[in-house]
Amino acid sequence: MSGHKELLRAYENFEADVRLPDSPAALYDPINYILSLGGKKLRPVFSLLAFQLGREPDQKALTAAYGIEMFHNFSLVHDDIMDHASLRRGNPTVHMKWDEATGILSGDQMLILAFKAIREASQDLSVLERFEQMSTEVCEGQRMDMDFENGKNINEEDYLEMIRKKTAVLIGFSMWVGAKLSGLSNSICEELYRFGSEIGIGFQIMDDLLDCYGNEKFGKRIGGDILEGKKTLLYLRCFNAASAKDKKRMQELTTGDHSEEEKIEGMLAVYAKYGIRESVEATMHHYFDHSDQIGHGIAAAKEINPEAFERLSTYVSVIRERAV
Amino acid sequence: MSGHKELLRAYENFEADVRLPDSPAALYDPINYILSLGGKKLRPVFSLLAFQLGREPDQKALTAAYGIEMFHNFSLVHDDIMDHASLRRGNPTVHMKWDEATGILSGDQMLILAFKAIREASQDLSVLERFEQMSTEVCEGQRMDMDFENGKNINEEDYLEMIRKKTAVLIGFSMWVGAKLSGLSNSICEELYRFGSEIGIGFQIMDDLLDCYGNEKFGKRIGGDILEGKKTLLYLRCFNAASAKDKKRMQELTTGDHSEEEKIEGMLAVYAKYGIRESVEATMHHYFDHSDQIGHGIAAAKEINPEAFERLSTYVSVIRERAV
Repeated sequence: MSGHKELLRAYENFEADVRLPDSPAALYDPINYILSLGGKKLRPVFSLLAFQLGREPDQKALTAAYGIEMFHNFSLVHDDIMDHASLRRGNPTVHMKWDEATGILSGDQMLILAFKAIREASQDLSVLERFEQMSTEVCEGQRMDMDFENGKNINEEDYLEMIRKKTAVLIGFSMWVGAKLSGLSNSICEELYRFGSEIGIGFQIMDDLLDCYGNEKFGKRIGGDILEGKKTLLYLRCFNAASAKDKKRMQELTTGDHSEEEKIEGMLAVYAKYGIRESVEATMHHYFDHSDQIGHGIAAAKEINPEAFERLSTYVSVIRERAV
Repeated sequence: MSGHKELLRAYENFEADVRLPDSPAALYDPINYILSLGGKKLRPVFSLLAFQLGREPDQKALTAAYGIEMFHNFSLVHDDIMDHASLRRGNPTVHMKWDEATGILSGDQMLILAFKAIREASQDLSVLERFEQMSTEVCEGQRMDMDFENGKNINEEDYLEMIRKKTAVLIGFSMWVGAKLSGLSNSICEELYRFGSEIGIGFQIMDDLLDCYGNEKFGKRIGGDILEGKKTLLYLRCFNAASAKDKKRMQELTTGDHSEEEKIEGMLAVYAKYGIRESVEATMHHYFDHSDQIGHGIAAAKEINPEAFERLSTYVSVIRERAV
């Protein structure tokens, strides 16, 4: 029985041992590069913790975790091109370090490698079907995100549907596939999918909050979303609540000619006027509370190891502690 | 028992009946668009003709054919971005009609849909494994092609390996999966893979020849490859055979300041001096002859329907008649 730190170490050792072909170098080097940038490896660890609910993680569990991380990194490489992002985990993005064509093609190969890993780990057509569904939702979520950024009018419901698809379903799938491969019943697997999805939505709302109210400890620049004019839950909720005059002010702050500090201070002042921070924190807690509720049900199931569930909960708490 | 025209019609009806989701429109519209541009649907027809060697094509056969065509179109959409191509089948490429981000994301979704169709059709993990291998080779082939265009020195062996991966393995897979799903033995399936791969290499060499010596009937602009400075088999073979002076002339014709007509006429004159057309035609015929040889073996197998093999051969000949 291992905690999240041991599982992370086991996963990192496994990932480091995978040998991709040497050639063509410009296809495989970028894959090694993006994986080597680290990151929290949140999804593989969630998957291994869920696997542990049934039994001790084995090679199969690690292979599935690798497939999940490969899929996640495929989506990062392609999203970074689409979003014109130049930095990822503090380093140049693949398309900046090489070029866009390289980012596109190595990303494609990563998606193929993800399918391969999930097949090898599961040897189960129903797991592959679920993986296709999840992958489709991630593409749909990214498309919705781009549509919103391109000016499509959205409400909170649309926003929550977007982050569910873009972010939460992969967290849900990570836990689902771990439980599935460890031999747990379908009903427990589905509960873990819901548990992970709710946590995923909570995490994304937490990220929106941290961007405005977080502190430097977390390495995030305060107000980045405001400067980029991103439509976060805070922005949407505030815009819907605001008076006509404050709506104008919000738009003016986003597009007008102000210093960065003026933009951030100005927007935070409007948020404060409408109590947006507290209101969005309450929404985040709603999702976390709901996941706790689902978790109680899972913890009570006879087929799972209760100590293992404790370890999964602990890891969720560690991530949540970053919350405001 | 159907000939290639009936199978093409059956395939086109099937494709037209598939309903992708309506939303997000900017994810699915480009997929409908690229499929609707038509093209010869060579790969689905090959797959259905190979299926017919065992028995009459059914929904399963059509679903696999659809997966193959979806994969082919995924690679076209992404390649067109990487190659900065503005036209495809006489119409704007996806990234020109929409934008690059749309081409990347809809292409990703097409790759996922291809995996889904192959899974639904086959319900067989070994078919999915083969599909992963083929997909990986296509990515490797595209990477080699880009490396060559970016100035990497290559010989004929490298070139042939590149076109094998980029083009031929998908033709081979199309026939392999058709035969496999119709229940033929593994050894016949492997022979069909070799048969299709050899034909695929022959077709690609034929395309290189048609670009220089074809006629307008085939809708290809004569000399397009020369104007683009593409390293075709004709160019490579000529460059290797040429005197130092003619090597310089070839490079000068590629990069120097000449009219289009001067470039094309000039290069064709160098090719003529070294008998390149005849020599490359002989290489093409070598691959077609080899495929004929493999075909004789397949035709003699007891388990296949000989009339169906006639129909497959007829279709190969129809495509080959385009040859110079």
